[in-house]
Amino acid sequence: MSFDYQGLAQQFVNHYYSQFSADRGSLAPLYRDHSMLTFERDQVQGTQAIVEKLTSLGFQKVQHEIATLDAQPGTPGNRDVIVMVTGKLLIDDEPTPKGYSQVFHLIPEGDSYYVYNDIFRLVF
Amino acid sequence: MSFDYQGLAQQFVNHYYSQFSADRGSLAPLYRDHSMLTFERDQVQGTQAIVEKLTSLGFQKVQHEIATLDAQPGTPGNRDVIVMVTGKLLIDDEPTPKGYSQVFHLIPEGDSYYVYNDIFRLVF
Repeated sequence: MSFDYQGLAQQFVNHYYSQFSADRGSLAPLYRDHSMLTFERDQVQGTQAIVEKLTSLGFQKVQHEIATLDAQPGTPGNRDVIVMVTGKLLIDDEPTPKGYSQVFHLIPEGDSYYVYNDIFRLVF
Repeated sequence: MSFDYQGLAQQFVNHYYSQFSADRGSLAPLYRDHSMLTFERDQVQGTQAIVEKLTSLGFQKVQHEIATLDAQPGTPGNRDVIVMVTGKLLIDDEPTPKGYSQVFHLIPEGDSYYVYNDIFRLVF
């Protein structure tokens, strides 16, 4: 557990959720063609399918409120990072935020990281 | 996405939670010395530290009620599996179950799998 995977995870998730709120289409560069997204019951693979899924979600305004964010190095000797986030989703003008959990598996590429695994579930 | 990672994840988690209820000390063979556990705010590494942490938790009877279980292959071309579970924890005689989220990263070893990453959080 040597490099600052917690700081990296925090930075990545802040960036991801900020882009998610501003323009979900702008998340495309964070995925690759072998990336996977499980969003509730749906599983899709590849940048295009993932971005189509994310942009087709039926809300306009959305904000993530992070409650916990935990990270661990994902592979012995590598610099990939597994992140679990729990929090609340504030959607449009709904008065009650929805609980959610999300996992990201971040893979290093050059000076940056992309999302290989993304699993999202609302929590009731 | 070729092998039955969802079935494997389901089978593993059922086994893990059943052992967790019966005897937390018996989980030791599922970890290795480079395995990591984040349990709420605490992070420990290695089979011995992990099992000490799990067996020191201050409850006698505990049961996991799984609400969702999602799995994805964790590395391109490999057979490791990332699992996210959400559910409720029933503790001793507490009347209200507690929500939780947990991530396991399962690494193949011979015919079996061990836990490399384990992140657990209660959800409020």
